[in-house]
Amino acid sequence: MPDERIATVTPVTERDARGKVADLFADIKRTKNLDAVPNFWRVLATNPDHLELVWTRLKALMHPEAAGRTSPLDPVTREIIALAVSATNGCAYCVNSHTAALRKLGMGVEALGEVLAIVGLFNSTNALADGYQVRPDVLPPQD
Amino acid sequence: MPDERIATVTPVTERDARGKVADLFADIKRTKNLDAVPNFWRVLATNPDHLELVWTRLKALMHPEAAGRTSPLDPVTREIIALAVSATNGCAYCVNSHTAALRKLGMGVEALGEVLAIVGLFNSTNALADGYQVRPDVLPPQD
Amino acid sequence: MPDERIATVTPVTERDARGKVADLFADIKRTKNLDAVPNFWRVLATNPDHLELVWTRLKALMHPEAAGRTSPLDPVTREIIALAVSATNGCAYCVNSHTAALRKLGMGVEALGEVLAIVGLFNSTNALADGYQVRPDVLPPQD
Amino acid sequence: MPDERIATVTPVTERDARGKVADLFADIKRTKNLDAVPNFWRVLATNPDHLELVWTRLKALMHPEAAGRTSPLDPVTREIIALAVSATNGCAYCVNSHTAALRKLGMGVEALGEVLAIVGLFNSTNALADGYQVRPDVLPPQD
Amino acid sequence: MPDERIATVTPVTERDARGKVADLFADIKRTKNLDAVPNFWRVLATNPDHLELVWTRLKALMHPEAAGRTSPLDPVTREIIALAVSATNGCAYCVNSHTAALRKLGMGVEALGEVLAIVGLFNSTNALADGYQVRPDVLPPQD
Amino acid sequence: MPDERIATVTPVTERDARGKVADLFADIKRTKNLDAVPNFWRVLATNPDHLELVWTRLKALMHPEAAGRTSPLDPVTREIIALAVSATNGCAYCVNSHTAALRKLGMGVEALGEVLAIVGLFNSTNALADGYQVRPDVLPPQD
Repeated sequence: MPDERIATVTPVTERDARGKVADLFADIKRTKNLDAVPNFWRVLATNPDHLELVWTRLKALMHPEAAGRTSPLDPVTREIIALAVSATNGCAYCVNSHTAALRKLGMGVEALGEVLAIVGLFNSTNALADGYQVRPDVLPPQD
Repeated sequence: MPDERIATVTPVTERDARGKVADLFADIKRTKNLDAVPNFWRVLATNPDHLELVWTRLKALMHPEAAGRTSPLDPVTREIIALAVSATNGCAYCVNSHTAALRKLGMGVEALGEVLAIVGLFNSTNALADGYQVRPDVLPPQD
Repeated sequence: MPDERIATVTPVTERDARGKVADLFADIKRTKNLDAVPNFWRVLATNPDHLELVWTRLKALMHPEAAGRTSPLDPVTREIIALAVSATNGCAYCVNSHTAALRKLGMGVEALGEVLAIVGLFNSTNALADGYQVRPDVLPPQD
Repeated sequence: MPDERIATVTPVTERDARGKVADLFADIKRTKNLDAVPNFWRVLATNPDHLELVWTRLKALMHPEAAGRTSPLDPVTREIIALAVSATNGCAYCVNSHTAALRKLGMGVEALGEVLAIVGLFNSTNALADGYQVRPDVLPPQD
Repeated sequence: MPDERIATVTPVTERDARGKVADLFADIKRTKNLDAVPNFWRVLATNPDHLELVWTRLKALMHPEAAGRTSPLDPVTREIIALAVSATNGCAYCVNSHTAALRKLGMGVEALGEVLAIVGLFNSTNALADGYQVRPDVLPPQD
Repeated sequence: MPDERIATVTPVTERDARGKVADLFADIKRTKNLDAVPNFWRVLATNPDHLELVWTRLKALMHPEAAGRTSPLDPVTREIIALAVSATNGCAYCVNSHTAALRKLGMGVEALGEVLAIVGLFNSTNALADGYQVRPDVLPPQD
């Protein structure tokens, strides 16, 4: 039997999922068009309420049509934001997951490089603005 | 005389700029179509080589046409990445600056809210993936 | 001989510990009721003064009774804070270590999920408050 | 008329709130027992769906009884986690808000100091564990 | 009476300091050659044990001769590290404090710019290495 | 054939490098006195403009003489800053790389421990200053 210990807790397998967890696993696979439930969701399932809270929010923002919403942003832009945040935080699982999502949406390595180039640039300027304690420019009112 | 001490160093005024710094200030105003040099660049000008290094990189990535490049990303997407990084790092100067840039490019408050909603969501999932030490899913080869 | 290179420096083995380091290793095992010195302390031992400084502070705050102090916080709360900080910073060693400590103190996976759910939530709201540059509410004086 | 520009967007006033936003504002004040809606929620209200998503999750985790849940954690522990995350991220709005909540729940300055002492300690050990690339200790299975 | 509320707690004044706190305040002023106790230490004094723990560690590392130690690093290098960490974390109080310390040690604005240039550069490459999930190079053994 | 998939993209091999990328690879090896191009640069090469932008900046700041500049900082101080930033961000690749560079420049484990001790200390005080929202001390003008 393969080792299921892939985290600090034992992830819930699809076979062991019951009730609310089973329903959420099915919705995750259907909405994301996947054959298996990713490790992230199987780990969250150790607290079913938490699984539901995170999935509800992620579904609304990243799969708006499935959640009955319209979003002003397109799917590629949404995944670019996810990758920018994940690279800035240095979250390995998240970087892998959102890079894979962008590749699946058709992004090539040169465009991916452009996204990360801008992520790298602004991690630099953020440290500089904070390191010099630069005060915001006086800007005209915006609305 | 107004107080020019807006940072941990005294920013270089446009009037005092000489040589390389004066040329870079002119290029910044021309490229960004601004009437005055923002505080960030005036502070960097206390080390002229550094001013040049950061501006060269930012111009190439954020104003590619002015730098003789073509970018696979459009201006709104580039500023969205800048805001996502800045909000994740909590850099006040940078958040103000990139929000202003997005508003100037025509983004309304509801779309801005959608960008920050996704930024907020993935700062949450990043902490969860790291907090549970979730291992990356086994993914098929990508190229 | 097993490979001892588990870090950027070679950790000090218990067998090789001498003088101050040997005394500190003994105190760490006694205070934490452990059979072996964790890797973290063996690595710090490459600079004995540093080992002493960190252990003195950690012992005072996390094992107050052994340090002759009384703490207003109970052991579970103290470890919850440690995990919240470690998950927010994405520190793998620390997440593993403090999750193990919480499990040893009797915390089940559902309660662990509730801790991480709140950690995830506030990593999200932190990014939102910074991303919108929300000013603090005016609050009545506190003391 | 007082200046309402307290953020990068103009916060929604309680007077201007309509429909879903008005209902959520009322629920926030009732659940948190407040006389006025904090700035954070007024800013989120510029994107009503986002306001609803964040409030639903925060209400479930921080006010579980009002959301029809039971939580394995008590209110003080929940706010301690919020403060630990906020101090680690350096989010000014959030630090102010969660410190005020803890004071309201009866925490004195000495206990608050103990919370922050542990937050400070583990921000230190996190940087050390990462700075030395310490590998996790081999631990016995946990469940 | 001037407002003493400069933090989330009321800082301890030098006039009100008693016993251990008064002794520590005196040692801080003597060791750092200051006329007044900085706000940071006055705030920590609301939990006297914590004040002692942090000061003991900072004195040993930043004022080693006063603590009876020898350090392999000189005072300028030690403050440079403090500024690099503070700029990376975006901590306003700390950036101001350590920039002032470097200026007092004789560092000019151009050298300060070089320090921050390197801080900015590696905040950028860190995000890139994490954003691409680059694996460490195979290096020859080091000792 | 050995697996070349060491990142989220397939790194460019030295054998496959053409034109600008080949020239940059040669300059990296010559400037850094290396036998092989590190993984970081091979990954960046998937977007040749980005490789050039990052290398130009890193060469100017970390190898100033090769770039025709003079730096007010010595090589050890420059690498110490790089390690301080990388440890604070928890970037594994970067910590390994800059620790190796410091060891190559002759730094022993005890001095390395002193560097990381100060990094750890200020990650702690940063969280404390932010966690208490300490306001900057009033300082005399600096220049």
